[in-house]
Amino acid sequence: MNGWSLPFSPKGLASTLTPPPWHYSGEVIAVEFEMSREQIAALLPDDLEVGDSTQCLAIFADWSSAADSDPRLLADPRRGQYKEAFIVVPTRADGGPAGRVPYIWVDNEVAHSRGQIQGFPKKLGEIHMTKAVALGRGGPKREVGNTFVGTLSAMGRLLMRASVTLTEAISPAQLPPLLALPQVHTRYLPSIDPELAPAHAHSMNILTDVAAGQALAGTATLEFLPSEHEELGDLGITRVGKGYLASIAMTLTGAKTMPAKPF
Amino acid sequence: MNGWSLPFSPKGLASTLTPPPWHYSGEVIAVEFEMSREQIAALLPDDLEVGDSTQCLAIFADWSSAADSDPRLLADPRRGQYKEAFIVVPTRADGGPAGRVPYIWVDNEVAHSRGQIQGFPKKLGEIHMTKAVALGRGGPKREVGNTFVGTLSAMGRLLMRASVTLTEAISPAQLPPLLALPQVHTRYLPSIDPELAPAHAHSMNILTDVAAGQALAGTATLEFLPSEHEELGDLGITRVGKGYLASIAMTLTGAKTMPAKPF
Amino acid sequence: MNGWSLPFSPKGLASTLTPPPWHYSGEVIAVEFEMSREQIAALLPDDLEVGDSTQCLAIFADWSSAADSDPRLLADPRRGQYKEAFIVVPTRADGGPAGRVPYIWVDNEVAHSRGQIQGFPKKLGEIHMTKAVALGRGGPKREVGNTFVGTLSAMGRLLMRASVTLTEAISPAQLPPLLALPQVHTRYLPSIDPELAPAHAHSMNILTDVAAGQALAGTATLEFLPSEHEELGDLGITRVGKGYLASIAMTLTGAKTMPAKPF
Amino acid sequence: MNGWSLPFSPKGLASTLTPPPWHYSGEVIAVEFEMSREQIAALLPDDLEVGDSTQCLAIFADWSSAADSDPRLLADPRRGQYKEAFIVVPTRADGGPAGRVPYIWVDNEVAHSRGQIQGFPKKLGEIHMTKAVALGRGGPKREVGNTFVGTLSAMGRLLMRASVTLTEAISPAQLPPLLALPQVHTRYLPSIDPELAPAHAHSMNILTDVAAGQALAGTATLEFLPSEHEELGDLGITRVGKGYLASIAMTLTGAKTMPAKPF
Repeated sequence: MNGWSLPFSPKGLASTLTPPPWHYSGEVIAVEFEMSREQIAALLPDDLEVGDSTQCLAIFADWSSAADSDPRLLADPRRGQYKEAFIVVPTRADGGPAGRVPYIWVDNEVAHSRGQIQGFPKKLGEIHMTKAVALGRGGPKREVGNTFVGTLSAMGRLLMRASVTLTEAISPAQLPPLLALPQVHTRYLPSIDPELAPAHAHSMNILTDVAAGQALAGTATLEFLPSEHEELGDLGITRVGKGYLASIAMTLTGAKTMPAKPF
Repeated sequence: MNGWSLPFSPKGLASTLTPPPWHYSGEVIAVEFEMSREQIAALLPDDLEVGDSTQCLAIFADWSSAADSDPRLLADPRRGQYKEAFIVVPTRADGGPAGRVPYIWVDNEVAHSRGQIQGFPKKLGEIHMTKAVALGRGGPKREVGNTFVGTLSAMGRLLMRASVTLTEAISPAQLPPLLALPQVHTRYLPSIDPELAPAHAHSMNILTDVAAGQALAGTATLEFLPSEHEELGDLGITRVGKGYLASIAMTLTGAKTMPAKPF
Repeated sequence: MNGWSLPFSPKGLASTLTPPPWHYSGEVIAVEFEMSREQIAALLPDDLEVGDSTQCLAIFADWSSAADSDPRLLADPRRGQYKEAFIVVPTRADGGPAGRVPYIWVDNEVAHSRGQIQGFPKKLGEIHMTKAVALGRGGPKREVGNTFVGTLSAMGRLLMRASVTLTEAISPAQLPPLLALPQVHTRYLPSIDPELAPAHAHSMNILTDVAAGQALAGTATLEFLPSEHEELGDLGITRVGKGYLASIAMTLTGAKTMPAKPF
Repeated sequence: MNGWSLPFSPKGLASTLTPPPWHYSGEVIAVEFEMSREQIAALLPDDLEVGDSTQCLAIFADWSSAADSDPRLLADPRRGQYKEAFIVVPTRADGGPAGRVPYIWVDNEVAHSRGQIQGFPKKLGEIHMTKAVALGRGGPKREVGNTFVGTLSAMGRLLMRASVTLTEAISPAQLPPLLALPQVHTRYLPSIDPELAPAHAHSMNILTDVAAGQALAGTATLEFLPSEHEELGDLGITRVGKGYLASIAMTLTGAKTMPAKPF
């Protein structure tokens, strides 16, 4: 029996996952929005506090991923490429500002499992994002004046829709800080054995080679829509800020786990 | 923060799962097959032994599921209904014969997560099964002489195909024992923190109200096909036995966890 | 080059379709509803009039299909089985009452193409329907007191949701007439050559062996929801009537074409 | 009743299609291959002859599309963006060399219907293609030395897989001619009314603004795999040539229809 995650198998090829380092390159559409401190606090466990700002981010990301330990992520684009939609709210962890992802959806099984073991609360969804085109009129070029859209559906319900109309090129340093802050997740595996406690810990990912490339900013729209399967639609947006289009990349090498207060 | 599994949310409605008891009603197409003891042993962790027989089962199941704690499983068929394809091999656990599911695929997120926390090594797949029709010529009635087919694809590859041509009605007692034996799973959550061990334990589900309804048996075919993402296609079938069509039901109330030898 | 529909190929196996007769066996959840005569008229071409009644039907159907000319519909359940959601409004054609399907969604390519050539305005969608269970508590048995639900999503938007809570067994003769009335479709293939007119004709299917099996009726709910890709959500339901659960079957042997007034 | 294709509706918003001009911008992975003249002839109708060369192309394309008449193609990326996989073989039409697409698969309903009315024999499939990344190690940059992969599955079967390992930048003029040759399709709508002939004509698209951007070439691999639903796997590749990665664009303004010999 070999492998690194379920299912284990004689050669270890059936495992959904292989170990880090995991490499990520992505194109993101991100929109700043604000909620009240009470609203943000209600999305955090009791042992995490709201950060200094109430600035949040809604992000659509189109990822390519690779792992030194699994050539299939590159050899089969169906395995390594995927899209995600999520929100990040400000918190504090390990003595500094951090991001927290209360809700996230993904369209790829490997990324779903890779997230679950880190504490990302990933659910399956359908994510669509405007691609920049190189030439012609089939879509927008990556240029000021053009509009880029992201949509998220899950369980057949439209959950989130955002758009960014580009007004200026910016430097990577002008991207919103929440895009690059370390994130604190809650790794949690429920138990159905009354004598076995759930696996439960806070976890901060260890990232290296975090980089941002060509970035643009602009005006934005953002909607959260209701579904009986979600609470994203309950969030009260008090202000929608700027929108961004950017190329980003990073490598995940591991995580630092911290005790979490039992629910 | 409320809920029972990730993601936690203010009202607890975002959680993929709610706690047991979980109720299942299903229609199954099952095919007996044999492999060598060596082949079966290679699918078991070191601390589980091959059972007395080398009879295995390939199963396609069309499930309806409910939970006392989540009315949405019934209110939205997209949430509670799903299909699975899996194989069961014979082992021993807790002093008696048991089944072990080395590989299983499912087409529903709730069932995927519900399986993962039990130790079912569930992956996502596309499962199709012949439905019995009530009247007309659009499909086969549930009658002797008719053929029922199951197919499984994952990552765009056809992985398993089975057919059963019914030759006789049987009593539920004549169904293969592996269909109802307790199963021993390995609950496993990898860790990317070198200071945190993976969650790792064997787990036997506690089932009540296990029942089988109308059952038929017949001749069968079974194929496992290759994929670079799986090892199902490596399994050497030495004999295909009978096939079965049956209605089954059960309630899962919890699990009994047992130590597992570290990999 | 052989085949019966695109794509043609040396052996004729690549064609999406083979010729009728086509056989259908299905389970339907149907809900009666009324709209104003003006609303119904707005869903009909100028040369079709509103029928005597303003009673309409919303239908979710779980089909098994077969063709004498294509054994693959039965051999591969992925090819022959599918679900549909649609509405039927009352009109008149060929001297008598008829049904008209202004909107219909299907989750199977063969059924999509089979519909298009008949004039069914089929679009792709995701349809989920409560299945009756044989035993256990995973879902409802086909019995008075139980509730059956249908949902339709397309392009990631929830478009239609219906439920029926069964109150009585009925005879097939008590099913709503629109379920079995002949239907008049408009077969239409647009042209992008200004010198070539679109293919355009009304078409009534020729059905044989129309049959209904076990049927139940009950109270119902019905919702149409908005989407920028559809006009279903614009329909003004003035009354929701009874709901039905029934097994039905039929064989389609051909069609009778009639001239249509150019748009 | 308004609209341009089925379904017609009061406002015309339900139609799957709106009229040309249609604009396309895409990224393609293309692989040259050869088959015997007999093999190519077997893929053509009797009234089309094999071209001068036996060079063919297998193409994976990631498209963005727009229409002057439908802003939703840009406003909702789910509507306007899609992927296709297809092969092109050499023929002659309208007095000159032309391409013919015997088989093509697409993952978007609008593109499926848009193709059908032109005579493209489009079927639904799942297409995955390596995306070039801007930075980081999650995927390959668009640079010499890197490998790009395309995969096609339909009906749960892997049908085609290609890879290109880039060895040199080339000028657009060095791209294979079949990529830009006019194509001759067969517009065909079967009839189930014995008194109505199928709609049947050859059709050549009228394209403007055909352009190619940054292009690279390299070594390639190509596989066609078997499925009971297709004949792609029967094609006998006698030689695999170069592979290409390129940005292309065009506008379709209409078509010129020509009589086709009845099958």
